[in-house]
Amino acid sequence: MTAELDLIESIQSALTDRSGGRVHTWTGDDAAVVRARDYAVTSIDTLVENVHFSLATHSAADVGWKALATALSDLAAMGADAGEAYVALVVPSRFDGSLDLVLGMEELAEATGTTIAGGDVVSGQILAVTVAVTGWADRELELIGRSGAWGGDLVGVTGELGGSEAGRLALESGEGGSTGLVRRHLRPEPRLAEGTALARAGATAMIDLSDGLATDARHLAERSGVQLRLELAQVPCAPGVEPVAAATGGDDYELLFTIAAERRAAAEAAATVSWLGEVVAGNGVVLIGEDGRPVEGLSGYEHA
Amino acid sequence: MTAELDLIESIQSALTDRSGGRVHTWTGDDAAVVRARDYAVTSIDTLVENVHFSLATHSAADVGWKALATALSDLAAMGADAGEAYVALVVPSRFDGSLDLVLGMEELAEATGTTIAGGDVVSGQILAVTVAVTGWADRELELIGRSGAWGGDLVGVTGELGGSEAGRLALESGEGGSTGLVRRHLRPEPRLAEGTALARAGATAMIDLSDGLATDARHLAERSGVQLRLELAQVPCAPGVEPVAAATGGDDYELLFTIAAERRAAAEAAATVSWLGEVVAGNGVVLIGEDGRPVEGLSGYEHA
Repeated sequence: MTAELDLIESIQSALTDRSGGRVHTWTGDDAAVVRARDYAVTSIDTLVENVHFSLATHSAADVGWKALATALSDLAAMGADAGEAYVALVVPSRFDGSLDLVLGMEELAEATGTTIAGGDVVSGQILAVTVAVTGWADRELELIGRSGAWGGDLVGVTGELGGSEAGRLALESGEGGSTGLVRRHLRPEPRLAEGTALARAGATAMIDLSDGLATDARHLAERSGVQLRLELAQVPCAPGVEPVAAATGGDDYELLFTIAAERRAAAEAAATVSWLGEVVAGNGVVLIGEDGRPVEGLSGYEHA
Repeated sequence: MTAELDLIESIQSALTDRSGGRVHTWTGDDAAVVRARDYAVTSIDTLVENVHFSLATHSAADVGWKALATALSDLAAMGADAGEAYVALVVPSRFDGSLDLVLGMEELAEATGTTIAGGDVVSGQILAVTVAVTGWADRELELIGRSGAWGGDLVGVTGELGGSEAGRLALESGEGGSTGLVRRHLRPEPRLAEGTALARAGATAMIDLSDGLATDARHLAERSGVQLRLELAQVPCAPGVEPVAAATGGDDYELLFTIAAERRAAAEAAATVSWLGEVVAGNGVVLIGEDGRPVEGLSGYEHA
């Protein structure tokens, strides 16, 4: 218990309040008090050792960064501004990297203007990191859900895909691999700036790519009640990654979005985007191969 | 993965939005969108199997209730109104009680007007339940931290103490024991109504009793830079519990507070309270025994 309190104290002294005065009662009280903006946007995510990461390939700081990145990516997908993070650690007695983990998280917090405003540390057999993040918006219209895609909209995606999975395979094979891809896996960057800029540009629906393009596109299609018709040849691939791998690899944390065709230039001004296809009537996702036919295994839809 | 999505879907359909329209985008999008009041009050807590509860003595529903109760108790201690809860479950493959767990949580959510607005379900070797709760207030003055106790203030506590620990011992001995004490352990009730009422009555500092009176009183004293001088004979004991056990047992989730002496009647109108002693200059906690001397082991302070 005393060791736990000591750890909590050293964690607290490692944290920086970058809220510009919005966070009133900070770590050390029963709860954090934050001066709110009109809309609070909140998500919670857990990473578990040997499920979402391995301490054989991830440093404690990598784990902390990644846990915050995963949660912030959900805020990016809503077009919200990052605000506060609340961190709950389950720590096995064999693990002595809790402070390093929080320092890794602080690196990303600093890069994104997030304040780690509270937390909990408990003991347990496996390392698990839960991060709840709250972002903010002044108007509901600024926020983009998954359900607003319309027939005729273009479908775009930020960045390059498949890099994280390629990095993971390189790490696990022990062959090292490209520093860039490995970093994509260990230190994914939530697309917060791109998310707010695409929201302002007029995105009608948006989702972050955590499970892979094929899977997450289906989520967006289902929530919007439409079909996404995408061309595999247009999928932006990370260096050395094949299109099929780019369309299925998870943990990229790029943003998939839909937007009216006349807003195409606005989207291109907002972020580096690739255009994958369009929204049509129907359901699910159709990924068209170079032969002009749906790629088996990557397309999921029901015939009307 | 499909089983996980099915579970998430059945959990979602078991949940009720009781926010009265404040929760805009609910479970099923990347994040929950909530129309904010002026101050957001947020806390996060994790319960881990075989550390904070045992499935030998707690049903899945008990675990869910308790996890939410623990988090809401922090809001009670701030005098905030309960708002939304975000739930992250780490679920071992041997555990099939996830839905029951959430249903137990929903019972307490209903009793307290809380909306479970989002969550995450992942697999892992041990059952761990993290709940982040957000409460709300219209003015910062309505919220009570740990640091506002003044010399001359009275020290009060709600309810009865030691019941949860007595219930735990009865459960673990297998002897059954009093239904009331066992329920105190399995289904603790966060003192939300008492917390807001005591805040309105003028409480100067407040903390919830999760680690036990002796320990939590020291936290409040440290944050306020004062000494709490309490009389053991005044500690309100759960039925059959001795004062020393009542002063050290954890998990009661009653509220310890300080308030100016002239607000005594207002506090008594706000909640069922017992008066334990007063705030004096100094540090730490002194628990006075019947012989008029500090009780060893329960008092912790440094000589000036």
